[in-house]
Amino acid sequence: MVALLELGALLLVVTACQGRYEEEVDGPNIINSEYGSLWPLPQNIQISSVAFSLSSNTFQIVHSQQSSAGPNCYLLQNAFRRYFEYMFGFTKKQGRYRSGLASDVSELQVWITSADPECYTYPSVTSDESYELTVDQPIAVLKASKVWGALRGLETFSQLVYEDDYGARNINKTAILDFPRFAHRGILLDSSRHFLPIKVILANLEAMAMNKYNVFHWHIVDDHSFPYQSPSFPDLSQKGSFHPYTHIYTPSDVKMVIEFARTRGIRVVSEFDTPGHTQSWGKGQMGLLTPCYAGDTPTGTFGPVNPILNSTYEFMSQFFKEVSAVFPDAYVHLGGDEVDFTCWKSNPDIKKFMDEQGFGTDYSKLESFYIQKILDIVAATNKGYMVWQEVFDNKVKLKPNTVVGVWINNKLDEELHKVTAAGYTTILSAPWYLDYISYGQDWQRYYKINPDTLVQVWKGNEQKYQEEMAAVTAAGFQTLLSSPWYLNRISYGQDWQQIYKADPQNFNGTEEQKKKVVGGEACLWGEYVDATNLTPRLWPRASAVAERLWSDKSVTNIDDAYSRLVQHRCRMVERGIPAEPLFVGYCKHEYKGL
Amino acid sequence: MVALLELGALLLVVTACQGRYEEEVDGPNIINSEYGSLWPLPQNIQISSVAFSLSSNTFQIVHSQQSSAGPNCYLLQNAFRRYFEYMFGFTKKQGRYRSGLASDVSELQVWITSADPECYTYPSVTSDESYELTVDQPIAVLKASKVWGALRGLETFSQLVYEDDYGARNINKTAILDFPRFAHRGILLDSSRHFLPIKVILANLEAMAMNKYNVFHWHIVDDHSFPYQSPSFPDLSQKGSFHPYTHIYTPSDVKMVIEFARTRGIRVVSEFDTPGHTQSWGKGQMGLLTPCYAGDTPTGTFGPVNPILNSTYEFMSQFFKEVSAVFPDAYVHLGGDEVDFTCWKSNPDIKKFMDEQGFGTDYSKLESFYIQKILDIVAATNKGYMVWQEVFDNKVKLKPNTVVGVWINNKLDEELHKVTAAGYTTILSAPWYLDYISYGQDWQRYYKINPDTLVQVWKGNEQKYQEEMAAVTAAGFQTLLSSPWYLNRISYGQDWQQIYKADPQNFNGTEEQKKKVVGGEACLWGEYVDATNLTPRLWPRASAVAERLWSDKSVTNIDDAYSRLVQHRCRMVERGIPAEPLFVGYCKHEYKGL
Repeated sequence: MVALLELGALLLVVTACQGRYEEEVDGPNIINSEYGSLWPLPQNIQISSVAFSLSSNTFQIVHSQQSSAGPNCYLLQNAFRRYFEYMFGFTKKQGRYRSGLASDVSELQVWITSADPECYTYPSVTSDESYELTVDQPIAVLKASKVWGALRGLETFSQLVYEDDYGARNINKTAILDFPRFAHRGILLDSSRHFLPIKVILANLEAMAMNKYNVFHWHIVDDHSFPYQSPSFPDLSQKGSFHPYTHIYTPSDVKMVIEFARTRGIRVVSEFDTPGHTQSWGKGQMGLLTPCYAGDTPTGTFGPVNPILNSTYEFMSQFFKEVSAVFPDAYVHLGGDEVDFTCWKSNPDIKKFMDEQGFGTDYSKLESFYIQKILDIVAATNKGYMVWQEVFDNKVKLKPNTVVGVWINNKLDEELHKVTAAGYTTILSAPWYLDYISYGQDWQRYYKINPDTLVQVWKGNEQKYQEEMAAVTAAGFQTLLSSPWYLNRISYGQDWQQIYKADPQNFNGTEEQKKKVVGGEACLWGEYVDATNLTPRLWPRASAVAERLWSDKSVTNIDDAYSRLVQHRCRMVERGIPAEPLFVGYCKHEYKGL
Repeated sequence: MVALLELGALLLVVTACQGRYEEEVDGPNIINSEYGSLWPLPQNIQISSVAFSLSSNTFQIVHSQQSSAGPNCYLLQNAFRRYFEYMFGFTKKQGRYRSGLASDVSELQVWITSADPECYTYPSVTSDESYELTVDQPIAVLKASKVWGALRGLETFSQLVYEDDYGARNINKTAILDFPRFAHRGILLDSSRHFLPIKVILANLEAMAMNKYNVFHWHIVDDHSFPYQSPSFPDLSQKGSFHPYTHIYTPSDVKMVIEFARTRGIRVVSEFDTPGHTQSWGKGQMGLLTPCYAGDTPTGTFGPVNPILNSTYEFMSQFFKEVSAVFPDAYVHLGGDEVDFTCWKSNPDIKKFMDEQGFGTDYSKLESFYIQKILDIVAATNKGYMVWQEVFDNKVKLKPNTVVGVWINNKLDEELHKVTAAGYTTILSAPWYLDYISYGQDWQRYYKINPDTLVQVWKGNEQKYQEEMAAVTAAGFQTLLSSPWYLNRISYGQDWQQIYKADPQNFNGTEEQKKKVVGGEACLWGEYVDATNLTPRLWPRASAVAERLWSDKSVTNIDDAYSRLVQHRCRMVERGIPAEPLFVGYCKHEYKGL
């Protein structure tokens, strides 16, 4: 009934797409992309029409002789197994392959070229994810400086493999040189508004790797529940979670998530949002939140964190010391968004403090006061920090760290970070001053700016967030875009196209400013999602963001994208991810997990 | 981030709901419903505060001595097992129950009061679903005239059972007298735009039973694919399905679906929509569709079914003869919607035929011509039929069946149906003429109306569909409402509330007209859903429709509904149905099926 009526003209074009997954697709003009099912599209790619066979019982993925990585690089060993299973597992289960058959391509040799492959380190915002892939007969070679590039290249290789009509695997002669457009390509999941079982988080980390995402922004706690089990403050989850045993993340759970992510080249950036969004903290930490008043009498309800008590900062110091140890990533997200001043205004002790400090009635000064102390606390743990845009909007003066944090897009930070990790402190270095020069007229306001502050832009329509990106970068901050990618928002139809069209560098600004854009994040807030519907709601819509953040800026052809994405979506389904359909059609191997 | 901003005032009211499932719920004002987790709400109910214990190792569901049904009523035996598992299965898996414990309520006695319990028949639109339930110590009694009422009562009994803090089961002293407000409470699933694996269909039949739905409207074929495997015309699915082996419904599949539905008191009404929406038919049945022309030359594309060929009607006769045998329900849905005249207009042979028939250029006359022949064909199979509203809108004159079909809301049809099923024909009977009197001023246009035509209203906003309901019923047709319940349409937020507020009898009309409203159907069209996301998209949103169609018209309190629905949703999750969350919160037993 609804089809012709609602889709109107779309259905007048009904074409069969003979893509490898043979998904019939209506809607955009259907073309059969020369790039097959590749997603996100590599930076430089040459695919010949020459097809080679791959046989699961002769083909193998191996370390090349020259590689600095070997069998004891477990991260790669796991990846070899994982991608072999992706490429042949289904066929083998189906018993389809013709045994004894020789492969035209008998080996994929993985060659890590740098002295330190980084098998045992954690990925960082400066990790080298570039790789070079040559598929030829009889040997395919994947060259990468580090394991991180090898992981991306293995995903790309697996995407080049396709089934013929007999279910046999083939791959075309191909040459690819690839690297990400942006260094920070993240997904935010919210485990506070609904608890997300570990298996849901792991399944989505798998899907992230299939889409070359490299940051899991774990919005782990919020007003509604506190599932993070803190060894230092067990009452936080004991009293602040939905359930103290079934709805918490134990230290082992967190360790597992971090290692699962690491072996896929994904960072885990934890967010502990304060001073707002902390209702659940108050249940397990008496005296942490501000008592709200009606006139002279406490109402029994509580507002944001109480910024006027020493006990607050003693707690935060100890808490963030633990967090910085539990989460190895160089960044922690401190939130700082949507601070409601109502309760602060109602509280007589806070009024008194405001007077003493000479803040008058400007409560954003009190917010700055609090956040500056928190930044000190976190700086002392040698972490860089991320904040939501309000911290910038409210003109919070960000004190310089006494330790230089992580710079984006150059290698300096690795050196500096080693130094600081070793416990030394360093003074601000030359490159920082160069950067400082570029702050422009705002320099006086921002003379104390901390170069490793990462401001996440999430508010507003296209015009608004472009203005915000311009302002943030003009002020010399590095920034992440999220506004157009709030995937919790849903609407009827093919909304992936709008998601796909947004570009983080599409704002008025200098080249210098554009360089301050570190990347973006797709956010799936938890009001309406849990284990029952999260994964299909996120995928393949988040895949549209993934290509925008990885591929070249010029990759914008909707028809070509659609042709590749329907096949990519079916591949995710075949790999066990319940990615929802983009439109009418089918997958050769439908979702079996229900 | 998003919570406070997007939900605004809602989050100012944060209250904990100590419901049995302890789901924390923000949003509507939270009350703790006196009706617990009952959904849909029974017609008459008295729950006392006296609580009885139930122990899984002593409690049993049995046939009462006076019951006309016994152990050889397999439909009930299956239901006893199913509901025992629902009530205790989870606990037993958890090993939570305290063995050896006696039950305050040791038995639920199921008593079928009428001579024929209908264990082996198919449910119909006139099946008696009423029941009477008394929960007391030591015996609970469920009285129903037929097994259909017993099935509804078992669901209600299972909804009265709740867990205490030790995981032990309890039930309160209760008296319920219940029956449906509407006889036709349906869900439409579309297996053409995406193929739905059998397990998806069965899972949703399970969920339908939990919500007291009684009609599965199977929109089994459409333009995009023809998954129904026809023994008479195997090429239809061989050539018209997405895949001839993996994406079809074999006769065994269909049998299984029908029996699975029957044992849950659910009818399976198949829809074979013609003359439009038939592109996929054309692939396996040469000459069935109208060749479109550009000037004098065929374009190679095809339009609706070709209404001017005898071969068309020979095919349809044979096809619907098969369908009427494969699907035992007394109704078949014939579609008749969205017929596009463009191709007919382009075809010279059709032009010629129009002239011969004196249709001029009024192609709706040609549509009528076709549909009248189809109605004759179906009438000859002793089926009643359903059509989409266009058949009414286009003033198609519906010829009287030579066999009286099924009347709604009285028992006459049972008699007549037996007669006709036995192969006899009967003339229109007195009740029909009584009905005829009520047609009002339109009677001349509708003097040949067929009383068992069921018109389904699906178009338009609230005002439009209310006008349509008024017009259809004024014309003496029975009708079903679907317009406000197109659940494939999605929007951000708690859209269940709008779904819940719509009422099928809320239009300007006489009591006589209101009686013509047989019920409604929630429709989930398949453009954007398949096995990956169908179930959470449908549930619990379809539950809102279920209560509207079952419970009394006066049941409209949103806060009370919300309190019961969050618990009902968690119960569906506990029973293995991935029903999505309504809002922030959690279930004691989260979805494990991922």
